[in-house]
Amino acid sequence: MDLTERINKLGIETAFLVGEECKAFHDKNGFSFPFHLGDVDLLPPEELRIAGANAYLTSKTRYTPTLGIKELREIVAKQFSERTKQEYTAENVIILPGGKPAIAFFMQAFVNPGQEVLYPNPGYPIYESQIRYAEGSPQPYPIVDTGSGFNIDLDNIEDLMTFNTRAIVLNNPHNPTGDILEEKELKNLAKICVKRNIYVLDDRAYAGLVYEGSDLDMASFPDMKEKTVTLGTLSKVYAVPGMRIGYAIGPTEAIEAFKKLATNIHSCPATPGQLAGLAAMRGCSNDALKIKELLRRRRDLTVKLLNKIPGFRAYRPKGAFYAFPRVDEAMEQTRIRDLEEFRRKVSQDTGVFFCTRNHFGTPDASETANYARFSFSGINETEIERGLSKLADYMSKK
Amino acid sequence: MDLTERINKLGIETAFLVGEECKAFHDKNGFSFPFHLGDVDLLPPEELRIAGANAYLTSKTRYTPTLGIKELREIVAKQFSERTKQEYTAENVIILPGGKPAIAFFMQAFVNPGQEVLYPNPGYPIYESQIRYAEGSPQPYPIVDTGSGFNIDLDNIEDLMTFNTRAIVLNNPHNPTGDILEEKELKNLAKICVKRNIYVLDDRAYAGLVYEGSDLDMASFPDMKEKTVTLGTLSKVYAVPGMRIGYAIGPTEAIEAFKKLATNIHSCPATPGQLAGLAAMRGCSNDALKIKELLRRRRDLTVKLLNKIPGFRAYRPKGAFYAFPRVDEAMEQTRIRDLEEFRRKVSQDTGVFFCTRNHFGTPDASETANYARFSFSGINETEIERGLSKLADYMSKK
Repeated sequence: MDLTERINKLGIETAFLVGEECKAFHDKNGFSFPFHLGDVDLLPPEELRIAGANAYLTSKTRYTPTLGIKELREIVAKQFSERTKQEYTAENVIILPGGKPAIAFFMQAFVNPGQEVLYPNPGYPIYESQIRYAEGSPQPYPIVDTGSGFNIDLDNIEDLMTFNTRAIVLNNPHNPTGDILEEKELKNLAKICVKRNIYVLDDRAYAGLVYEGSDLDMASFPDMKEKTVTLGTLSKVYAVPGMRIGYAIGPTEAIEAFKKLATNIHSCPATPGQLAGLAAMRGCSNDALKIKELLRRRRDLTVKLLNKIPGFRAYRPKGAFYAFPRVDEAMEQTRIRDLEEFRRKVSQDTGVFFCTRNHFGTPDASETANYARFSFSGINETEIERGLSKLADYMSKK
Repeated sequence: MDLTERINKLGIETAFLVGEECKAFHDKNGFSFPFHLGDVDLLPPEELRIAGANAYLTSKTRYTPTLGIKELREIVAKQFSERTKQEYTAENVIILPGGKPAIAFFMQAFVNPGQEVLYPNPGYPIYESQIRYAEGSPQPYPIVDTGSGFNIDLDNIEDLMTFNTRAIVLNNPHNPTGDILEEKELKNLAKICVKRNIYVLDDRAYAGLVYEGSDLDMASFPDMKEKTVTLGTLSKVYAVPGMRIGYAIGPTEAIEAFKKLATNIHSCPATPGQLAGLAAMRGCSNDALKIKELLRRRRDLTVKLLNKIPGFRAYRPKGAFYAFPRVDEAMEQTRIRDLEEFRRKVSQDTGVFFCTRNHFGTPDASETANYARFSFSGINETEIERGLSKLADYMSKK
């Protein structure tokens, strides 16, 4: 069957290919150290597990409304109102099969052919793919190494804006660097967006997973509620990525458009997942806090050990579950000049699998430094220790 | 926020609005007879409920591959190979969050701007909406009243085809008429599609729910395997519409394109639902057969009682869970000439809620007869009896 031209516009997540390599290595060698995953291996909250099980046992498997269960929309709106100090109601919320559909839906609903959309680079590759699929013009804005972490460069972002800029995508905390946007940057960015009437897709998939610094939503800032669609998900904070329950929260016209898209594509999110998510959000156990504490410990361990590896230099990420070490010296030591070749060689020699900067968008011509992404969400402390020690041994012999 | 033009192209399922009316009536009056639903109120198979519950209890809530769990894809391929007497493997299968995404994905992957796609009218409204969204040209083909049931008109379909016809959508068993396509029609249609190189989206959401006659897939016919994408779902046959597990099965190039779309939109279907579905498909209990038998009994009762209502005349549907009575005489008796007005008046006077032909596409100018759709999937036998008796009383006083 002959495919349409538009299918060629779609990008993919090349990070998945690392997963396939890791699996092949594991099958052959009986071990592997999965630092490449965006998956989470922690125990979800007890309320969630029990509510999900009850939903199946008691046949709560009929359709819900397209927008999702009212009670779940209400609690999402309530918690978001508290976070942002703005007034949101269930009318501002659509529950989705994961947070991801909000990216495609935002571009379909708001990006007219030829309009420019700014997105972070390095960044989650689906932004660029979906801007392109909506026939928009993707404009990468750099996430820069400040010498003490990673950040946006506000002057640069404003320089990139034109009369034709429709929207900007934020991802805070940020994948792949694990860094966050502080109040100062968000506030100034908000002013720019208001002045230029630019919409925001605020991808807050890692909201709630901030270990230091602030955990702020763009919608909190003056006049931004009317311009911002926020992407949220239960995947990370409750450690249930395969449950596929996320949401979008924004102005009612955005939610109505997303509802039309949902009616046309998926009908409603899975009912048991919605009930399980509702129980977790209402829950009073500390299981969600425990998830965050475990991730914090893994972060500290990962960063400490990465910095012991010859040629690796990592900042301590303030949020999410990724460290993003610079690896230029390591590459020099191994006499490999290509980042992808370095990754493949190191992984095949050690069983330590990780992603690199190149899995998160096309590097700008001006970029000279090389980075790797080490995720600590899918690997426990013992294995972090074993894997990174092995990598340190390997590098110390180079 | 200003929406894009393309969002206006999207149609919706207006049948959902009947659901809102029914709910409002129920809240006010304490009763209602829900014949409008495409939902299913029967007990899902025990294996499914237990496997879904176990998935939650044992935290099987991590990502699966985008294409879905291998074992589920394998059993889908195996059962489909048996049904079609063609060779299908897991490579031909993508698991989706419901069957519905296959409609949007098919149009996105195969319909170039301006190409014509034939779809059944009356029919499920998402076909037309998604053809239009993909910038295709929707060409309705009539489902005609033959005097003993409903059928396609092959001569008419071939007349509608042009050099620019890319694809045809089949829905077998058919919503809203509940009728099926027999071997003769499918065989002749297959010949036309081969001759003209026309692709087929074979929407088999109601496969397995055929009470009389054949239950055939277009992909069974010579040379059609390479041209057909089949939509399947666990929603109807296992009575779990809110579990959101369906699939598409077709040539590998179609599956690869669908995988790209899935990566960009939803990542993977919910893991607990996939495991629950796998258990049901592997299951050896007779629960799935019981679902069909209960639906058959409801069908017989619904048709019998509909035909006792003055002015209603219904065929016995061979599949799915819809009766599609002609209501012209009833409209005459109530002196209402508009079908929608008739529906609303009858529902508000009796509490019996149902859809009409007008919820399933725009009637052709040549259509003169009026029909209503009575679903029996979301209402038990006692309530069918009470509701339709009430409707009979009401009509006999007109």
